[in-house]
Amino acid sequence: MAVYVTGHKNPDTDSVTAAIAYAELLKAQGTDAIASMQGELNPETQAVLRRFNVPAPEIMKDAAGKTVALVDHSDLKQAPDNLSADNVVAIVDHHKIGDVTTNSPIFCYVKPVGCTGTVLKQLYDVEGVAIQPKIAGLMMSAILSDTVNFKSPTCTEEDKKAVAELKTIAAVQDTDALFMEMLKAKSAIEGIPAMDLLNRDYKDFDMKGKTVGCGQLELAALDQATPAIREALYKAMQEKKAAGGQHTVLLMLTDVVKEGTELMVLSDDASMIEGAFNTKMTGNSMWIPGMMSRKKQTIPNLQKAFGC
Amino acid sequence: MAVYVTGHKNPDTDSVTAAIAYAELLKAQGTDAIASMQGELNPETQAVLRRFNVPAPEIMKDAAGKTVALVDHSDLKQAPDNLSADNVVAIVDHHKIGDVTTNSPIFCYVKPVGCTGTVLKQLYDVEGVAIQPKIAGLMMSAILSDTVNFKSPTCTEEDKKAVAELKTIAAVQDTDALFMEMLKAKSAIEGIPAMDLLNRDYKDFDMKGKTVGCGQLELAALDQATPAIREALYKAMQEKKAAGGQHTVLLMLTDVVKEGTELMVLSDDASMIEGAFNTKMTGNSMWIPGMMSRKKQTIPNLQKAFGC
Repeated sequence: MAVYVTGHKNPDTDSVTAAIAYAELLKAQGTDAIASMQGELNPETQAVLRRFNVPAPEIMKDAAGKTVALVDHSDLKQAPDNLSADNVVAIVDHHKIGDVTTNSPIFCYVKPVGCTGTVLKQLYDVEGVAIQPKIAGLMMSAILSDTVNFKSPTCTEEDKKAVAELKTIAAVQDTDALFMEMLKAKSAIEGIPAMDLLNRDYKDFDMKGKTVGCGQLELAALDQATPAIREALYKAMQEKKAAGGQHTVLLMLTDVVKEGTELMVLSDDASMIEGAFNTKMTGNSMWIPGMMSRKKQTIPNLQKAFGC
Repeated sequence: MAVYVTGHKNPDTDSVTAAIAYAELLKAQGTDAIASMQGELNPETQAVLRRFNVPAPEIMKDAAGKTVALVDHSDLKQAPDNLSADNVVAIVDHHKIGDVTTNSPIFCYVKPVGCTGTVLKQLYDVEGVAIQPKIAGLMMSAILSDTVNFKSPTCTEEDKKAVAELKTIAAVQDTDALFMEMLKAKSAIEGIPAMDLLNRDYKDFDMKGKTVGCGQLELAALDQATPAIREALYKAMQEKKAAGGQHTVLLMLTDVVKEGTELMVLSDDASMIEGAFNTKMTGNSMWIPGMMSRKKQTIPNLQKAFGC
């Protein structure tokens, strides 16, 4: 009976690519294995699979009657439905030890590193199995994603070493560029209605009797907001202001890589907003370096300007 | 804070030697570690530690306030008291996955092989740490013990490979002889009162109104029962028969290696007992090849002879 290899519910890039990479390892060792996942691909993982030309795993939500290998989790809550102590045959993970138990001895390999991809890279090496270039690409992408391009506090030297070795196998020169591709896929805004984008993370605030609305979009790069998208966003801001009667409607286009925000402004008193951030607008927006947090940076500056 | 490495409750040779071997691995990698155990050494493990000149681990029964690495188990019931999800930092095992959980990612390495010693051998290799000869001797002894000298159905090719490599490191030529030493230590009868030995696994059976008592001692070799011990055992059988009024009192000295039993006989009708097993006595005993089980072999033969 084939082993279904699966990551956790709400699959992310590590869960999906680890299922593929571990299934390939098992197959290389003579075990019939099927890569699977418990839900649809997110935009980042879609981009990664497309980038390395690997098909998506099949959807598998119910473990009843199946033989299952778990990757990227060991918690029953995150596992497929009807998983029992009789049908788990392996666990490969990098999280805390969860509540999955078994009735027989199985293979279990968990390491306190940043990504399951790193654990799998080491497992391939221990087992002496060569990693296919496209599979190396997937594992490397997962590590970049989970460690936020090595910036996460969960990132270890082992993660960095794994990427250094995997990039050679995958023949990928620039891992920063790969990370940026993933980030852009994750924060993609093209094709989404402008009002949905404005509302994605929008709040109205009371400023001494005046209402100031502020939305925020996190982007990998400002150029994701093309002139056409900006125009549509500005129209959405106008519609919102017309309907809601706000004194000011703002939209933060936050560049998470450059660490700053382009603030789009529609206000009854634009010069007051310029004053709040001590910056002049170009057209209907201003670039504010270092501004990342609406709660900790944008709103306090506005409150000060409005005399709150 | 030093990591206490411990095996399960009622420690056996694998639990004790795995605690020592994993503590040594951690120390070689710069982690302060203390080998520990949850109870006294059994006779087999005593012999193994003496053979390789390694001191016994310290006793540690309460995990409160300690940092703990578990070897040879992952079940809370078998773990030290007051173990919590916060103080386990590693698991190395070869059993089914138990109910120990953690609050942070830890190292967990479990393989479906015959012995934790085999998992540790592989871990030393993966980590590139040289195994000290005496530690190799301990790990090898554990594998021989857990796999019953490779005869257990739980024994894998990986266990055999590990012993083949460990015996070279430990400079042990004859693993069969080492296994025999352990078996003798485990089945040691010297110094134990004869009546205790007779009663160790003794039962009275009704045979058509006559009482037949039968005890059994499992031995690595018949010569463990020296002439002096046999004389004392025979006296104990006489005492028991005088006190209990049995028609016959038997004691099976079962050689688990040669697979046969020397049956000591004290009977009101010794020739009937000889007839039951179609064998003549030499002195007060007879050798019955292939006889291992009281329940499945000895008693059915007697019942037939007594006309039950």
